[in-house]
Amino acid sequence: MIRKTHPELGDPAAGNGILSRRVFLEGTLVVGATGAGLSCGSAEPLAVQPWMKVPGPGFAGYGQPSPFESKVVKVFPPPPNPPGVGASRTPLHMLEGMITPSGLHFERSHSGVPEIDPDQHRLVIHGLVKRPLVFTVEALSRYPMQSRIAFIECGGNSLALNAPQAQPLNVAAIHGLLGCSEWTGVRLSTLLDEAGIEPEARWVIAEGADAAAMSRSIPLTKAMDDALLCLYQNGERVRPSNGYPVRLLLPGFEGNMNVKWLRRLKLTAGPAMTKDETSKYTILLKDEKAWQFVFPIEVKSVITRPSPGLALRGPGFYEISGLAWSGNGSIRQVDVSADGGRSWAPAALQGPILPKAPVRFRTAWQWNGGPAVLQSRATDDTGMVQPTRAQFAAERGFRGVYHYNAIASWRIDEMGEASNVYA
Amino acid sequence: MIRKTHPELGDPAAGNGILSRRVFLEGTLVVGATGAGLSCGSAEPLAVQPWMKVPGPGFAGYGQPSPFESKVVKVFPPPPNPPGVGASRTPLHMLEGMITPSGLHFERSHSGVPEIDPDQHRLVIHGLVKRPLVFTVEALSRYPMQSRIAFIECGGNSLALNAPQAQPLNVAAIHGLLGCSEWTGVRLSTLLDEAGIEPEARWVIAEGADAAAMSRSIPLTKAMDDALLCLYQNGERVRPSNGYPVRLLLPGFEGNMNVKWLRRLKLTAGPAMTKDETSKYTILLKDEKAWQFVFPIEVKSVITRPSPGLALRGPGFYEISGLAWSGNGSIRQVDVSADGGRSWAPAALQGPILPKAPVRFRTAWQWNGGPAVLQSRATDDTGMVQPTRAQFAAERGFRGVYHYNAIASWRIDEMGEASNVYA
Repeated sequence: MIRKTHPELGDPAAGNGILSRRVFLEGTLVVGATGAGLSCGSAEPLAVQPWMKVPGPGFAGYGQPSPFESKVVKVFPPPPNPPGVGASRTPLHMLEGMITPSGLHFERSHSGVPEIDPDQHRLVIHGLVKRPLVFTVEALSRYPMQSRIAFIECGGNSLALNAPQAQPLNVAAIHGLLGCSEWTGVRLSTLLDEAGIEPEARWVIAEGADAAAMSRSIPLTKAMDDALLCLYQNGERVRPSNGYPVRLLLPGFEGNMNVKWLRRLKLTAGPAMTKDETSKYTILLKDEKAWQFVFPIEVKSVITRPSPGLALRGPGFYEISGLAWSGNGSIRQVDVSADGGRSWAPAALQGPILPKAPVRFRTAWQWNGGPAVLQSRATDDTGMVQPTRAQFAAERGFRGVYHYNAIASWRIDEMGEASNVYA
Repeated sequence: MIRKTHPELGDPAAGNGILSRRVFLEGTLVVGATGAGLSCGSAEPLAVQPWMKVPGPGFAGYGQPSPFESKVVKVFPPPPNPPGVGASRTPLHMLEGMITPSGLHFERSHSGVPEIDPDQHRLVIHGLVKRPLVFTVEALSRYPMQSRIAFIECGGNSLALNAPQAQPLNVAAIHGLLGCSEWTGVRLSTLLDEAGIEPEARWVIAEGADAAAMSRSIPLTKAMDDALLCLYQNGERVRPSNGYPVRLLLPGFEGNMNVKWLRRLKLTAGPAMTKDETSKYTILLKDEKAWQFVFPIEVKSVITRPSPGLALRGPGFYEISGLAWSGNGSIRQVDVSADGGRSWAPAALQGPILPKAPVRFRTAWQWNGGPAVLQSRATDDTGMVQPTRAQFAAERGFRGVYHYNAIASWRIDEMGEASNVYA
């Protein structure tokens, strides 16, 4: 028998059922609020399932998810794209916490995923340096290392929301070009100090060892600030899909600049004007002008649960859970609305709150079974607030393709189904 | 040509080449200290490898490590143990950072790894409660969640160091029953509040759904403090080897108590005296007495690099890297010695420093090519300091098997080979 009682939930914090974040901050809750536990008589024995009757399979050298989770995979487009050209997307609606499992971290490739022999791979630093240097992977691993938890988001993430009509897409299809890992590697500044920077150098051209030789120009100031040459991702060597054996990490900068399979760093006086910073990754504005070299990802958030494909099963208590991030710093606050932005309440933020890392936010919600529009609005520690779609449009219009960061909306209908809407 | 010059390394911070942690804290370094970069003439073209000449393979739904990393696997004993009985060990010497990839997280199983259908799995809460409750996995996922980064260490980790003579083992074989994940789940206190705790309840018996029905008694105070029923590990659903679909996390408590495949929580007035808290996981002392119910893992650390199997390639700069952790709180300090404990210098600690989570520490070391004995000594924020082996022996002797946490030593010989020694 499902328990129907819903004891004291506390005062609402915003309209349409949003509850106070004290639920999370104080750990006090909402006893029986979900009604999800089923009463059972204590004399009723728990079924002994088949897997308790015989020993299970043995150990594996490298473990995998349960076969029952086979639907939790990255999604990528079928042909006509050649294999490995385009992007695979993280199924954010099936994940929790802050870390993205490396097997599910989105990837963007221009010419497939190269199969690099680390013993043959070389990284060269040249151009406006006093001493050109070549590194083997083993040589790089001799240097002092640094670890940091950081997001990488493709500059083209969420571009589906530029469409005039809201498309029937889920969170992976719209926002799935986002991942977060604990990255470990060598500070680029260490190697540039060793090479010796010529005074006229201002930029670093980073080139990958894929067949596209994907290249981007990086300000030398960023290279000397917090750039890392990553050898490790979530504890193990970087995955091939994310740049094995060496990936450039530029914390907070758009994903494309975090060059994978890094083979070359050339110091120059000016930017190289590569394909990916001219024909792509410039932001076309309403007035036919364009922004070029817009590097940091602006403050942003998305609700991952509830979201399209995860239907609510009847009125009652739900946790609204999502991610917030900013390439300019740390997340200071996330507000959540269940009435399309008419009223807001602050969500609980899951620590640790780290700069240029995503933060999991959580809000308690008592769904009354009626229509609702769920939104989240992030603020970072520079004071930047995620804009509404109208504010975003007023500044940039919808031709920009890149760096879409407006507040997103999920409509919940009376059946508990969620859908992408503009609200 | 390998560059031989070793410019200013700064003053030593301790004997036998230990350098100041300012190298890490200030990011100033040690220009050219490793001699690892190879000079190259700028006219010398970088080889274009085969993987740049054709597009690489396409995307995969669930990614895997590079085939060149096939040696990075958990290690587990061959028969005569039945498959899946015993433990598989994390290859800590091949990893970096704080997070353990889920595929490499150690496992301890008593009857293999059960293949549990999450739709059939049930968790019951009964015994001294007002309302016995049964939960499906889906029902559990309705509750408010919490994430935390936490280590799990088997209480029997490092027991090889109880042997009278130091064994020729590497870090995985000695210390590899240690892992760290970002765990996400429901606070156990939330569910116990819903069930309603009878006043005479003091313990919770936790039982797994493996064929061994592995069980432990947990103090109710811990259950109501920071215990989590985890559904997610490093962002995705908990791996089968680590308790899919529901694992009990008791942050800081010995691994065996973090019951996997959790099916039953029974509230009782006293402990159940299960096999794993009587015949095992009690600590036999010198005087024939034993400590029972020793739950938190005491402060501990281990150097993962250099370590046995990772030979140094000639004198010069090396980073000494390792992990420190405490089940009683946060790591406050780690000291490193290269002369077998005669002199010590504080290591750089990699943030975020979180309670009951491992901390990566790093020390810069200029190896002069002579013999050295590397040690690390952790201190936690309760003031507990990792004991020397002699101090550990004086208190407990070596019959205890469990909770060995004395300072460990790697000897480096003139060939750069590392070996396990008592020093």
